[in-house]
Amino acid sequence: MHEGEIAFGPGKEFRFIRRLIRRFGPLASGIGDDAALIHVPRDNMVAISTDTSVENVHFRRDWLSLDEIGYRAVTAAISDLAATGAAGIGILVALTTPSDLREDLDALGDGIARAATAAGVGIFGGDTTRGPVLSLTVTVFGNTREALRRDAARSGHHVYITGVLGGPGAALSALRDHTEVKPEWRARFAEPHARLREARWLAGRGVRAAIDISDGLLADAAHVAAASNVSINLDLDRVPLVQGVDAVDAVRSGEEYELLVTSAIPIDCTAFLQRFAVPLTEIGSVADGAPEVRTSMHGRPVQIEPMGYDHFGTR
Amino acid sequence: MHEGEIAFGPGKEFRFIRRLIRRFGPLASGIGDDAALIHVPRDNMVAISTDTSVENVHFRRDWLSLDEIGYRAVTAAISDLAATGAAGIGILVALTTPSDLREDLDALGDGIARAATAAGVGIFGGDTTRGPVLSLTVTVFGNTREALRRDAARSGHHVYITGVLGGPGAALSALRDHTEVKPEWRARFAEPHARLREARWLAGRGVRAAIDISDGLLADAAHVAAASNVSINLDLDRVPLVQGVDAVDAVRSGEEYELLVTSAIPIDCTAFLQRFAVPLTEIGSVADGAPEVRTSMHGRPVQIEPMGYDHFGTR
Repeated sequence: MHEGEIAFGPGKEFRFIRRLIRRFGPLASGIGDDAALIHVPRDNMVAISTDTSVENVHFRRDWLSLDEIGYRAVTAAISDLAATGAAGIGILVALTTPSDLREDLDALGDGIARAATAAGVGIFGGDTTRGPVLSLTVTVFGNTREALRRDAARSGHHVYITGVLGGPGAALSALRDHTEVKPEWRARFAEPHARLREARWLAGRGVRAAIDISDGLLADAAHVAAASNVSINLDLDRVPLVQGVDAVDAVRSGEEYELLVTSAIPIDCTAFLQRFAVPLTEIGSVADGAPEVRTSMHGRPVQIEPMGYDHFGTR
Repeated sequence: MHEGEIAFGPGKEFRFIRRLIRRFGPLASGIGDDAALIHVPRDNMVAISTDTSVENVHFRRDWLSLDEIGYRAVTAAISDLAATGAAGIGILVALTTPSDLREDLDALGDGIARAATAAGVGIFGGDTTRGPVLSLTVTVFGNTREALRRDAARSGHHVYITGVLGGPGAALSALRDHTEVKPEWRARFAEPHARLREARWLAGRGVRAAIDISDGLLADAAHVAAASNVSINLDLDRVPLVQGVDAVDAVRSGEEYELLVTSAIPIDCTAFLQRFAVPLTEIGSVADGAPEVRTSMHGRPVQIEPMGYDHFGTR
C-alpha cells in the first residue's frame, strides 16, 4: 500500500471525496488511484467479502443516526471477515446517496471511520454515486494462513456462541410496533461489534468452523449443518439473552453480529470472557445425521421455524 | 481459494444464489463461506477496487438489456483494475434488485458471467438484497508486483490512448434525444472492453502512469496532471474517433473504458495493434508546469471544459 493522499482533478464529486478523506484522517490510506494496493504477509491468503446495507431494507433513517448507519454497515461487513478468523487489513466503501443527504455525509463518514477504528482496519478507497436511497456496499479484506469455514463442523464438536443475543431483534420489533425500546436493546442494534479479534483467538485454540449469525442463530446454524453435512443440536436454555427477550425470538431474529463456532477441543470460556469482556457460551454439540439443526428447551425437543433475515423472502 | 460449492441452508435468497451459481458455472469459485479466500503469488501486492452502477444514474433498463447491464457493470469495475496493470483474479458482486426483476435475474447473471469470462477472472461471491432500483457494486481484485499509478507521469513522457473514442457519449446523447443510435456507437456503449491484458503488455514496455478514462479523457487526464503535478498537452486532432462524432464531444464524455498511459520510452503502437486488434495512439506529451491539461486543435490552443461523469454534479 502506498501512504498519503493523491491529488484529484476538479469536479464536485472529488471535493466530496476529499472532504470524506479529511474526515477519515490517518485511517485513509492510498485513496485516489483506480485501485488500492495491499501488501499481504507471505504465505497468507487474502480473505475478502462484500456486504450491502440499503435504506428501508436494512435500516431506516428515522431509527438510526447517519453516524450509526455508517458504523453498522461497516461492522456488518467486517463481521463476515471475522467469521473466517482472518486479521483485518482494510475496507472499500461504495456509497450511494440520495440528493437530500449532501449536508449530512460528514456524520456518515464519521460512523464509517468509527467502525474501521474499532476493528483496527484502514479505509483504502471506494466509490461515490447518487441514487434514490442511501446504500452502502462495504468490501472488507484481511489476511489469514488458514481460514475458519462453514463446512468444517464435525461430529463430536462443541458448539459455542459469542455475546448475548436478542437485542437487535427486540429493538427492531419495538421500533416497528412503536413500543418502548430498552436502551440495552438499542445499543446492541445500533452499536454491534465485529468479533474480529475474538475469532482469531478462537482459531488459535482449536476452532475450525465458524459463521457469523447475521441471518439469526438458527438460520446460520442451518448453513453450517448443510455445509458440513452434520446435525447440530442446540440447547436453547443455554443461549445467553438480553433482558426481556424470549429465547425463541432471540434465535430466530437476525442482525446479530456474533459468531457461532465449533471445536473438537473444549474452549476455555472464562479465559475468553476475561480477555474480551464478552461471554463465550457452549450451547450445543455436533452429531452425525441429517444436515439439520435440532433444538431443545427445558430438556425437550422443540421445533422452531428459522426466520432470519431472508431479504428475498420479504417481498 | 477452495473449489466447489458449499451447501446453503433453507431460504429463498439461497435458492436464488444457488441458481446464480449454477448460471456462473465453472467461473464460480468458493462461493458460500462468509468470505472468499484468494491465493496471491509471492512478492505480489493485491490490487482491489470497487465500482457501483445504479439504475437511472449509470444505466436505464429501456436502453440496455439486463445481460448488457450485468456485462457493463462488471467491465466498468475491471477497467479500474486494468489501470493498475494488475493481473485479474476475480470479482465479488453485490446485487440490489427491485421486486419486479425476480424472473429476469438469469440474464443479469449471464451478463456478469460474460464479462468475467472476457476478462479471464473468477466470480468469488457477493451479496444479494432487495432495494428500490437495480444496483450492482462490483469489487474486483488482482495481483501485481508493481502498479501503474496516476502520480507517475513525468515531464518528457509520451501520452497514449487505447481504442477509438466517442461511441458511448454519442450513444447516450442519441438515446436521450430519441435520435438515431448508430450500431457502432451502441456497441461501444453496451459492450465495452476492460483493457486488462493491454495494460499488462504496456506495463512490460515502460509505461508507469495510467488511468482509465471512465470520467472522460479530459477529466481523467486532469486527474493524472493533478496527481503527478505536471502539465499534460493533448493534440485533439490525433484522438481516434468513431464515425460521426466530434473530437470535443468525445474527449468531454465519460463512460469510456479505455486507458490513458504515459511512458518515457516510445511505445510500438503497431505491435500493440497487431497483438490486441485495438489501436494505441500517441496523443500528446507531459511537461513541467502547472498541473493542468492543455488541449490544441488544428495547431492552436483550445479551451474545453471537461464534463466527464460527475455524478454529484448532476443533481
